[in-house]
Formats: sequence, C-alpha cells, structure tokens
Amino acid sequence: MLTSSDKNNELFLGIDGGGSKCKAIIMNKDNEILGTGISGPGNPLHGFEQATNSITESAKLALTDAGLAHIELNELIAGVGLAGVNLPVLFEQMNAWSHPFKTMHLATDLLIACLGAHNGGDGAVIISGTGSCGFVCVNEEHTIVGAHGFPHGDKGSGAWFGLQGVKQVLLSFDGVVEPSLMTDVLLKKLNCKDDTDLVEAVASQKATFYAQQANLVFDAAEVGDKVALAIVAEGAEYINSIGRTLAAKKPPRISMLGGLTPRLKSWLANDIKTNLTEPLYSPEVGAVLFARQQKAKESVQKPA
Amino acid sequence: MLTSSDKNNELFLGIDGGGSKCKAIIMNKDNEILGTGISGPGNPLHGFEQATNSITESAKLALTDAGLAHIELNELIAGVGLAGVNLPVLFEQMNAWSHPFKTMHLATDLLIACLGAHNGGDGAVIISGTGSCGFVCVNEEHTIVGAHGFPHGDKGSGAWFGLQGVKQVLLSFDGVVEPSLMTDVLLKKLNCKDDTDLVEAVASQKATFYAQQANLVFDAAEVGDKVALAIVAEGAEYINSIGRTLAAKKPPRISMLGGLTPRLKSWLANDIKTNLTEPLYSPEVGAVLFARQQKAKESVQKPA
Repeated sequence: MLTSSDKNNELFLGIDGGGSKCKAIIMNKDNEILGTGISGPGNPLHGFEQATNSITESAKLALTDAGLAHIELNELIAGVGLAGVNLPVLFEQMNAWSHPFKTMHLATDLLIACLGAHNGGDGAVIISGTGSCGFVCVNEEHTIVGAHGFPHGDKGSGAWFGLQGVKQVLLSFDGVVEPSLMTDVLLKKLNCKDDTDLVEAVASQKATFYAQQANLVFDAAEVGDKVALAIVAEGAEYINSIGRTLAAKKPPRISMLGGLTPRLKSWLANDIKTNLTEPLYSPEVGAVLFARQQKAKESVQKPA
Repeated sequence: MLTSSDKNNELFLGIDGGGSKCKAIIMNKDNEILGTGISGPGNPLHGFEQATNSITESAKLALTDAGLAHIELNELIAGVGLAGVNLPVLFEQMNAWSHPFKTMHLATDLLIACLGAHNGGDGAVIISGTGSCGFVCVNEEHTIVGAHGFPHGDKGSGAWFGLQGVKQVLLSFDGVVEPSLMTDVLLKKLNCKDDTDLVEAVASQKATFYAQQANLVFDAAEVGDKVALAIVAEGAEYINSIGRTLAAKKPPRISMLGGLTPRLKSWLANDIKTNLTEPLYSPEVGAVLFARQQKAKESVQKPA
C-alpha cells in the first residue's frame, strides 16, 4: 500500500478550477495518472468558499478514484490552476487559503493549460470555451491576451457567439436587421413562441447560458445564413488577432483549447490554423507539471 | 382638511417604478400636483418584495410631502407604471399583488411615459437612459420597439454606450484596436492603473455601472476620437431606426426621454431630431392620467 512515509512515492495533485467545474488529478512521481475527480465551480470569482470547497472535494474524489482514500490531503503536493487568479486580489485571497495540502503551488488556469498542452515546455494556447483568451510562455516570460470576462470582453468565445446570436435575433424582431435562420432555431430551443418569450428567457442570463447558444450560430453560418456568417467572421477575426499576437512571441508550439475549438477552428485564417498543434496533456496534468517545476526551483533555492 | 369622505376630493397616486428608483406623485381631481416622493428600485425584475415595498414607501413619502400624512393608502386611486411588466409573468405577479390602495391600475413604464409626454393623448416616445426602447400609442394600439434588456439588447442606451467604450478600451490594451482618448479617462475615473485593474473594476458590473461610463464616450467623440465616434455613430443609428419605426405609425407627436437624451440627441439623423417635440409631463403624471382613463372606462362599463 502506498503511504507518504515512502519518500519515493510522493503524490501530486493537479487542480484545474474553472467557472463551471473543478477537475482534479492524482499523479505519482513517475507522472502516472492514478485517479481523477470532478466537482462544482472552482473559480474564486464566484466565491472563495465555493472554490475552496470544490478544490477539496475534487481532490478527495480523485484519491478515492485512485484507490487511495486512506491518504490524507496533507500528504499531497498540489498544483492548483484557477480561473480568475490573474486578478491580483483573487490571487492573494486564494494564496492566503489555509489549504489542507502538504504544499500548494497556485497558478492561473491559463498557465497550467499551456504547461499541459506543451508537456511543461514553452508554447502558447488559444482558448475559446465559455470565455476566450490567449496565453504564451517563452523563456519564463508570460503574456496574456484578452481574458477580460463577459459581457465586456471574451470576444470570440462561446458566450460571445451566443450573445451575438441572441442580439441579432432580437433586433430582427424589430426589423432593424434582416431575418436569420437562427430565429426559429433559438425560439424552439428555448421553448419560446415570440420575442416577448425570448426576452423573458434571456433576462439576467449569464455567460454559460449564452455559451450554450453558440452552436446554433455556427449551424446557421455553415448553411450560409448571412447574419450568422457575419458573427462568425467577426469572432474568428478576433481569435486570429489573438493567434498573431501570440505567434509574435515565437513560441515553439501553439495549441487551441476550449469547448468551442471544434466549431471555430475551421473558420480561422490559414496562417493561424495551419500552425496549430494538438495539445499533449490536459490542464490538470499541467497543474502537476507546474507543482513539480516550483518544487524543483524551491529545492535549488533551499539546499538541504 | 382633505378627507376621502368628500367625493369631490378624490386623490390620485402616480407611480413610475424603474430599476434604480421609484417615483410617486399625489394629484387631486383637478390634476394639481400636491406632493412627490422617491424611494428605491421599483422594477419587479429585481424582486417582487423590493418593488412593492418601494411603491408603498414612495406613496407614503408623497402623501407626507403633500401634507396629507393622515390619508390612508386605501383612499388613493393608483396608476402604477413599472419597468419589466411588459413581460407577462411579471405583469401577472404585480397585478396579483394585495396592494394597499383603493384601486390599482397597472401599466408598463413605457405607456405611462408616453401618456405623460403627450398629456394623455396619442404619441410616441424614444427612450434612452440606462436602457433603450421606443413606444408608440395611436388609436389605443401600442407598439414597443426594443426594450430587450442588457447586455443582449438596449442598443443605443447609456449602458450600451458605456459597455462599448469599456470593450474598446480593453481591446486596445491587446493592440487589437487603435488607442483611444477614452482609455486614460476611463482608467482615471475608475481609479485603475492598468488593464488588470480595469478588468477587476468591471468584473460582474451591471447596466447601471456601464451607463455611468456613457458620458466619456460622448466626450471623446465630441473631440474627434475615432473609436468613440464609431461607437456613437452605431448607437445613434439604432436610435434613428427606432425613431423611423415609430414614425411609420403616424403618431401626432414624438418625444425623446431618458437620461442620455441631452448627449445623444445632437447625433441623431435630421429626419428624427427635427421631428422631436418636448415632453409635456413626467411619467408619474402619465401614471395618474392612465388611472383616470381606466377609471373612466370602468364607469362607462359599469353604470351605477
């Protein structure tokens, strides 16, 4: 049985905490995946308590999944990548957490995604899921592009595409823009009979709701709907510009991540899409790679 | 002293309940204003209890202001115009309220604004404040244009202009759009030193916050800032299209209302702005006019 008393059996926890769920992975010192767990939102933007609860819960689930339920959290070396901690106030709050782990190395969700995609090496990632952004790490220098949030930023994200679709459908009811195939699809999907129903259905909805409407914009664009094509062109052009900003930093690899990737990739400019390489590992694995790198640095700084 | 026992001294209450405040007015049967009161949000979109509390509180304040604190609410004939009740579910909820008045006549904030602007007669209103919309009433037929809400609608409103400004400033940090005079003004106004601060300052902000940023877009446009000029042109064009949709219904008068009117009016197309007439009375007075009209109809329908 694996115990923490065996120094050669150090256990690593990788956490990828986003706005809708928190993913955990347990890996051994040989980088083998032993177990995984998923819990609720791990983004401290939606509350410190919820984020820390989700991290702890997903870690326990991953231990159980690994058949290591007897291992205490304080035996784990944790790499924790969280959405939102690019904001200094949230980074400080999370970093001050009296966490239950042996050690905790905190990073942005972007850094761990990038480390995972490029197996711990230099590289860049274009992310389009519920939100959108770019991230590049070359020679330990990090640059973030976008990652501004919704509705004021995150252009080219699922939430952005869905919001544009809803906006154009609402405008078309007033005759301000031309009708679109999206109208009937959206009304049916949201179980609405008219514009009044639609206004009611979308009142106070958040980014995740809008991200769920992104597919119908791509569906309409793919059959030539002009309104949808204009939306897709505008969103793709912004993602192109993220890609070009990242490429200017000369990363050895660029990957595209996030739930919208399969829909959006084919609409990108040739100079962007032909240079994309498949991500090698998940962000959770990236979080473990981050913890290992930080641990290695610390042992160099603090010789025994 | 005025008492309800004197049939000739019927008292009317007019309510204009919006997202940030609820205004009340007390008028006598001769349409003389006796007192006014203001309380918190009266829009049921933000909660039934808050809306009903605000309505009751503003009514009591208006009675006190009129020197009529001894008059009970159940002696008032209330005309109540509320934002949000264009959504049937909210109309039904508010109309089912066990209200404290003698009678309550419920209408949208748009209808009472239009009745006020045109002294109870036919006409149209273009509204651009925190939100935006158009409303026209001709021969008892009402048409609403827009009024979809934020951030998916309300183009050309204060919230929309402010959001566009913030969006363009954020994009300019990433080098995706050209720099704008708005950047420094916005950073200073929100006490931010860089883009990270700005992202933090705007995270999860609502329509009212964005509406407070609208003026700096107009300030920049007025000194020729290209990015701001493009925003103002796009927003003004949508308001023009609202104006043209309303004009097609041949209302005898069209007025423009809402807090953004002084900034936006000069940017509208000539065919729109030359046809605007000043509003005659406030929405609260319009609410009283609505109550009178409904009362008159009822007494025709139900002869003694």
